[in-house]
This record gives sequence, C-alpha cells and structure tokens, in this order.
Amino acid sequence: MSNRVPVGLSNKHVHLSQKDINILFGEGHELTSIKDLGQPGQFACDEKVDLVGPKRTIKGVRVLGPARGESQVEISLSDGFTLGIPDVPVKGSGSLVGTPGIKLVGPKGEVELEQGVIEAARHIHMNPKEAAEFGVKDKDMVKVKAEGERGLVFENVLIRVHDSFALEFHVDVEEGNAAMIQNKQMLEVIK
Amino acid sequence: MSNRVPVGLSNKHVHLSQKDINILFGEGHELTSIKDLGQPGQFACDEKVDLVGPKRTIKGVRVLGPARGESQVEISLSDGFTLGIPDVPVKGSGSLVGTPGIKLVGPKGEVELEQGVIEAARHIHMNPKEAAEFGVKDKDMVKVKAEGERGLVFENVLIRVHDSFALEFHVDVEEGNAAMIQNKQMLEVIK
Repeated sequence: MSNRVPVGLSNKHVHLSQKDINILFGEGHELTSIKDLGQPGQFACDEKVDLVGPKRTIKGVRVLGPARGESQVEISLSDGFTLGIPDVPVKGSGSLVGTPGIKLVGPKGEVELEQGVIEAARHIHMNPKEAAEFGVKDKDMVKVKAEGERGLVFENVLIRVHDSFALEFHVDVEEGNAAMIQNKQMLEVIK
Repeated sequence: MSNRVPVGLSNKHVHLSQKDINILFGEGHELTSIKDLGQPGQFACDEKVDLVGPKRTIKGVRVLGPARGESQVEISLSDGFTLGIPDVPVKGSGSLVGTPGIKLVGPKGEVELEQGVIEAARHIHMNPKEAAEFGVKDKDMVKVKAEGERGLVFENVLIRVHDSFALEFHVDVEEGNAAMIQNKQMLEVIK
C-alpha cells in the first residue's frame, strides 16, 4: 500500500551538542548507542539527563544521538505542565529561536539552556523516491488517518524529504495514545 | 453556533459505590463536594484514593461524586502503563463487565475491585432540545473537529442524550493534549 506510513512514537528525549555533552558527561565524552532508531544514523543512548523545570524535575530522560549543533529537548504537553513550562511551542526539529529554556543535569555537570524546549510537530520522514510515490514534496502538509474505536484524523502533518530518511510518521506519546496506535502500525496518508 | 460544543477535559478519577465509600472512608461517610462539574449534580470531592496496580501505585486520585451503583476508575492509556494495566478498554461510563480490576486504598481501608477500570470513550452530553438542534439522537456517532496547529478530527464520538445533561464534549487529557484544546473551547461537530 503506497499510501500508508508506519508509526514512530516519540517519548520525551534530549538531543545534545558536543559542548553540552562535555559539560554534562565530561570533556570529550562520546555518546553510547544502545539501540538504533527508525531514522538511519539516529540512536538511543545509554546516557540520561534530568530536566529541571521551574516547578518540578523529570529525572532520567533519554539522550538521542548523534550529537547535534544545538541541544534540543522534546517533551509532551503533560511533561510541560509537570516541569512548570505550560506554553511549550509546537515546532519542527531545529526551530528553536524563541523557545523556552531549561536546566539539564548530568553526572558531571549542569547546563542552563537558554532555549530549546519544544513539542515536536507531527511529521512524516521519507526519501525522494517515496515522496514521488506519494505525490508530495518537502514541507507539504498532509493528513494521516488512524482507524479503530479511538480513530481520528491528524491534520497539519508536515512532510520532510531527505535522502537519509526512512519512511516514518512521528507523533508524541499523547498523540499516539489519543489514537490508540502502536509503533510500526500502518496509517493512511490523505492529501 | 449551534453546531459547536464546549470541551470538558477529564483527568483520571474514581467514582465510588456507597459500599466502597464506607470501607475506604469509614461507615456512613458522605462525599464532600469541593467543586461543581460541567454536568448538573456531578461534583469533584475532597476525597482521594490511591490506585494500586500490579506494577506501580498512583497516589491521590480524585473521587467524583455523587456515589454510584458500582465503583469505576477512569484513567488514560499512560496511567494504565504506569499501573501495569496496559490493556485498559475504551468503554462508555457504566459498561464495566469484563474490565480489569484494581486495588483502591483510602484512609480507613482498602477495596479490591474485581472490575471497573476503563478509559472513557469520547462522548458528547446534551439534553433533548440540543439533540434536536444538532439533528442527532442518543447513541449516534459523530465527529468533532479541532482547529489549530495540532488540529485533528476525533472520529467515533458517542452522543449521549438525557434531560439532566449539559452540552459538553468529554475527552481525556491525552486526547485533549493531542489536539492542544482547552476546557470550554468550542469545537465543531461534524455528522
């Protein structure tokens, strides 16, 4: 079925710059992969950090690798309430200007991020061949339909096309639970 | 706008039978209202209980009054994972046959429920006059559309009509956060 995409559920996680890795885990530390993720080259790390919000701390949040140019914290709306950051903006990955900051605590030090806390906007990764098959291009918006007793249609789903991408529809845990969908479940794309 | 309904977000909560109130809070105890809810006669109580699941306990879960014929625990999918009850069924209120049980702990005692743990199915309360205006009847299914950057369409929304009901679209916190909607926000009903 060329009009279907597999689900990839995103739990809260942190991407780190090498500068912040050095502070949190020690100078020259390299992230330790424990599991490959759906997108080629991306991996879950053994490393975890604590998120210290104005209201509460969420301990032991997974770091995803590899290191990036700028640190980024991806959480759900519920996590934002827990931390005391109720107005976390919905953003595409890497769009961090004007987003809230937060304190990260690791085993060797702590970092006060001035910005970088987002809720990831729903999106579909695909390579150019898949984009051609779907008849879409980078930055298009589509809908994705989930069937079942908690069926719903996700609107405003961003298409992201790159040679390095694998076909995957990324939503956060609350979006996934609202639709009662599972990892790798195939959902219909509606243009 | 007669095709719009106000949102009512449901956090996890417990309804109790008088028999279970007697065990959990003491013989003849009466629930203490601290806040009226959207539905006439329903209220949030000062009383709280702990939910003891096979995996973990969730402490201090709000009781809603008045007392009912049978105790009922309404949680989200995430709460189910926390407790160690991953397969909580989506049910209409009061449809408890075959649902999972759980242990409730109050200040005066504890109750082992044999059934009663559900995720509440999305539904709209309305009175018969409103049903006539919407052109729907009890047990009909409709869709509800949320606008905005996390816009989505909830499918399989159950219509519930009764003289005692006030117009309100009930979803749980994860469904609300997936659509980034607020209490009392007006959403469009689609037949």
